[in-house]
Amino acid sequence: MDHRGAMAQALAAAREALAAGEVPVGAVVWRAEGVIAVAGNRRRRDLDPSAHAEIVALREAARQLGDWRMPAGVWVTVTLEPCPMCAYCLREARVTGVSYGADDPQRGAAGSLYHLLGDSRLGPAVTVLGGYQAEEAQALLDRFFAARRGSLGGGVSEPG
Amino acid sequence: MDHRGAMAQALAAAREALAAGEVPVGAVVWRAEGVIAVAGNRRRRDLDPSAHAEIVALREAARQLGDWRMPAGVWVTVTLEPCPMCAYCLREARVTGVSYGADDPQRGAAGSLYHLLGDSRLGPAVTVLGGYQAEEAQALLDRFFAARRGSLGGGVSEPG
Repeated sequence: MDHRGAMAQALAAAREALAAGEVPVGAVVWRAEGVIAVAGNRRRRDLDPSAHAEIVALREAARQLGDWRMPAGVWVTVTLEPCPMCAYCLREARVTGVSYGADDPQRGAAGSLYHLLGDSRLGPAVTVLGGYQAEEAQALLDRFFAARRGSLGGGVSEPG
Repeated sequence: MDHRGAMAQALAAAREALAAGEVPVGAVVWRAEGVIAVAGNRRRRDLDPSAHAEIVALREAARQLGDWRMPAGVWVTVTLEPCPMCAYCLREARVTGVSYGADDPQRGAAGSLYHLLGDSRLGPAVTVLGGYQAEEAQALLDRFFAARRGSLGGGVSEPG
């Protein structure tokens, strides 16, 4: 597995989230040997404020591996820059690196608003590859928020 | 329900976590009418890097209320200052305020290392009441880490 293959699966998970009425974000936990877990955002379906794609995928990966701390060499590829919740969970799960698609200027914690993945006060920094195949990831988000603004009569851009 | 009653239940949940071999932290989601959810840290038991007490309690509260966004007037009382993951989840869940016991100088996100709960770039700030009945909360943590250092031959203070 590599970044390209992981992002293809993350985008597929984001499209499934969109079809289910969720903010379309997808994440894949993987290493060179193969994919460990794939998930889309499930907040509405699960009634869970923590059910962003990255956290759902990390939970599944931890169950698969029998440890909430990932072994060395595990990457997470996600279609949108992680928020502070997900960024800190990625650190706590000891992932080696994070690659992501679209930047999130409003709440991104991999460099846009916070630098949680690189903050050496929290331990070894997590390697970040940002803006990777951002176009389709951003297009899915734009489609979701345009549809929501349409159905609500305009003006709403709140995430969630 | 009030802060005093909520902290009593949060401390009880932290003691249960300690007995189960978890880092002893407990959290209560509550409003004036009563408690909505109580949880202790469950990371090891659930093999879930996101299973800090606050997040487990918020998940349960969201299920109880049928919405991942809390109504106005909901507070979360927790024995330890929230980490960045939990702080952002508390914001996303729209809690009105957070009261906590012990400060966490290494990773606290309610003022010690980050000010995630007060960052107005992320939306309306969450009210924070810190250092509330910190002594027993800190004593439980000290007991846990002293025992771990003892069993490992000293020197280890990694959280988890």
